Amino acid sequence: MSIITLITDFGVDDEYVGVMKGVILSVNPAAIIVDITHHIEPQDLIQAAYIIKYSFKYFPEGTVHVVVVNPGVGSERAIIALEMTGHIFLTPDNGVLTFLMDEANIGSIVRVENSRYFLESVSRTFHGRDIFAPVAAHLSKGIGIKALGVPIDRIDLERLSVKHAGISSSGELVGTVVSVDRFGNLITNIDAKSLDKFCKACKEERLEFRIGKKKIIGLSKTYENVLPQSPLAIIGSRGYLEIAVNCGNARRYFTADRGDTVGVVSNNL
Amino acid sequence: MSIITLITDFGVDDEYVGVMKGVILSVNPAAIIVDITHHIEPQDLIQAAYIIKYSFKYFPEGTVHVVVVNPGVGSERAIIALEMTGHIFLTPDNGVLTFLMDEANIGSIVRVENSRYFLESVSRTFHGRDIFAPVAAHLSKGIGIKALGVPIDRIDLERLSVKHAGISSSGELVGTVVSVDRFGNLITNIDAKSLDKFCKACKEERLEFRIGKKKIIGLSKTYENVLPQSPLAIIGSRGYLEIAVNCGNARRYFTADRGDTVGVVSNNL
Amino acid sequence: MSIITLITDFGVDDEYVGVMKGVILSVNPAAIIVDITHHIEPQDLIQAAYIIKYSFKYFPEGTVHVVVVNPGVGSERAIIALEMTGHIFLTPDNGVLTFLMDEANIGSIVRVENSRYFLESVSRTFHGRDIFAPVAAHLSKGIGIKALGVPIDRIDLERLSVKHAGISSSGELVGTVVSVDRFGNLITNIDAKSLDKFCKACKEERLEFRIGKKKIIGLSKTYENVLPQSPLAIIGSRGYLEIAVNCGNARRYFTADRGDTVGVVSNNL
Repeated sequence: MSIITLITDFGVDDEYVGVMKGVILSVNPAAIIVDITHHIEPQDLIQAAYIIKYSFKYFPEGTVHVVVVNPGVGSERAIIALEMTGHIFLTPDNGVLTFLMDEANIGSIVRVENSRYFLESVSRTFHGRDIFAPVAAHLSKGIGIKALGVPIDRIDLERLSVKHAGISSSGELVGTVVSVDRFGNLITNIDAKSLDKFCKACKEERLEFRIGKKKIIGLSKTYENVLPQSPLAIIGSRGYLEIAVNCGNARRYFTADRGDTVGVVSNNL
Repeated sequence: MSIITLITDFGVDDEYVGVMKGVILSVNPAAIIVDITHHIEPQDLIQAAYIIKYSFKYFPEGTVHVVVVNPGVGSERAIIALEMTGHIFLTPDNGVLTFLMDEANIGSIVRVENSRYFLESVSRTFHGRDIFAPVAAHLSKGIGIKALGVPIDRIDLERLSVKHAGISSSGELVGTVVSVDRFGNLITNIDAKSLDKFCKACKEERLEFRIGKKKIIGLSKTYENVLPQSPLAIIGSRGYLEIAVNCGNARRYFTADRGDTVGVVSNNL
Repeated sequence: MSIITLITDFGVDDEYVGVMKGVILSVNPAAIIVDITHHIEPQDLIQAAYIIKYSFKYFPEGTVHVVVVNPGVGSERAIIALEMTGHIFLTPDNGVLTFLMDEANIGSIVRVENSRYFLESVSRTFHGRDIFAPVAAHLSKGIGIKALGVPIDRIDLERLSVKHAGISSSGELVGTVVSVDRFGNLITNIDAKSLDKFCKACKEERLEFRIGKKKIIGLSKTYENVLPQSPLAIIGSRGYLEIAVNCGNARRYFTADRGDTVGVVSNNL
């Protein structure tokens, strides 16, 4: 098994991603390279952090996940390789793995320093090509992460603050829209369990969801629970509460965006 | 041979497509996955129906073609697997294969129900990941479609109405723009044969093509038959009449779009 | 090794690229296909010429590089296959390899004419599918380029004029912005060596870069040399002078674009 996944903010108009693949295949011609996305907004670490969290577990164990998104300021961070639940992550030490830390305990971590696994000449501006690509290729060939550098025992988890959903003083379950997908679905940080717990004694069809000044009554099981162009609240495919519009676009419907608040009221309270 | 093609409206900004590939490779690490397009407009079944029609035959026999586009209303359709001319199609039973039916007789069809080939936990909102991806992977490993569920003998062919070109009472050959490509080429439903038949005794250079109030005289063999920025009519690579602009964009030139009428007059009549 | 890279202006909304891959895999199921980019602006030969120049050398020897971008007028060019430093290039004879010619001496060249390696039926409008794809696949299987047609000894190098940087009468090093990437970085045709030579006795931190009416003082080693949203001059990953904005977009900052002039003044003169 030699799968390498890529998450970058490089886009696909330029040759950057193709060149990374050329470097990978030069080292390991048997590598299977999967693009998760190259359309992270430039320097948008939070979006990248959610994408890796949502996606890694659908790949087989042994997969090498490469995330190259640099938020600019302070981007001269170390590069780390981290093993967790059988997956290997290769990223800058910039907090992009923060949201993964809920998932499982971290295994070993190393600071990637062994230039033996880098391209011969390393530029100052394209570590994706010169370091991440060849190192990922070597990892996919089976070298252990320990060959890459010195073990370290902590990574940067302070840069990105995880926003947890919580109960307000008025008894409302308050969450945040943490990402918005292509369909305009508003993905919150309220997971299925928290909603379940909040609603313990309540009827799902009586839950009330508040986005700005608009309301949705009831948790839907499917998009088709409501009429076309009507809004709904649903546990989405990632296991979190999403606000959607059947055959429509919730971002536009609610003129909402990342960072906005979603409140849930249980009318049984 | 274990090729799987993908047509979806998922875009490539989110992790959806990458996650489907992770699931496929978890089941069949030897699968070769080819993206045909993920840029179907959300819920645009017609566009997807043309894309699969135009593309499938260029893949080797044994290829598994997956189309995941749901038009929303009534999207809680059965999932079907269909064999035709050595290719396997895995799609919702929503009419997306309608335009293929001209091509050949349908072979066997089954309703996909055997959850043994699904992900262990199937969400309500992402069947692409939970059903289509693992089932396609199993198909690419060689299980027959019969293992997937019960045989059925008809699929939904009523949802999409095939617009056929025809002769109007005034003797004009009347067709429709059925899709528009990235270059702005207007692809009609008038195929080479129909045009040939219509023009039997005529000279191609005297054919007259009408789009809105504008006219093109003569059928071109190549784009370069006309000057740059000039319009032309040509049998395109899909075997259908296309209206194009040499080094330009016919959609903008004619302010035309899908659904618009294209008329052909043979001046020999 | 059987890698085929693709550079086209086909975009990824339509089925064009997918269909090319189907044709390739029909001929050589073991081919590894890498998209460098399909987002060349329609008919933008210059952009394609830079992309192939910047990328090919990161692939292993034996790679087949396919470039299908036609500038329209005069696009009825011969198709050529060219061997150079162990790589094979398959392109229209339209000058798209012009910028490569600095890199190394050309090896053998043939005009591709042997229809035995084409699709059975060749359309007038989609040579990417009917000629480039199957020929590339055969090349990736190891047929030599000589099997493809007659040797020729020159290719079109006149169509694209290489703009070389040079010293103006006032002693300024004058270059041109030759491409702009997704991040808005302005890539010039002033390579590291030329700048070095120009600056022989000077201090890099005193070099002055002029873009329109704006100036940048000093050559940076990294983006982080300057504050966020501040402009900088840097030798980019391709080995050429780039004008960038840390965490920002130089194209917008300078309202500059391809074709604009960048001047360098050494204050030691």
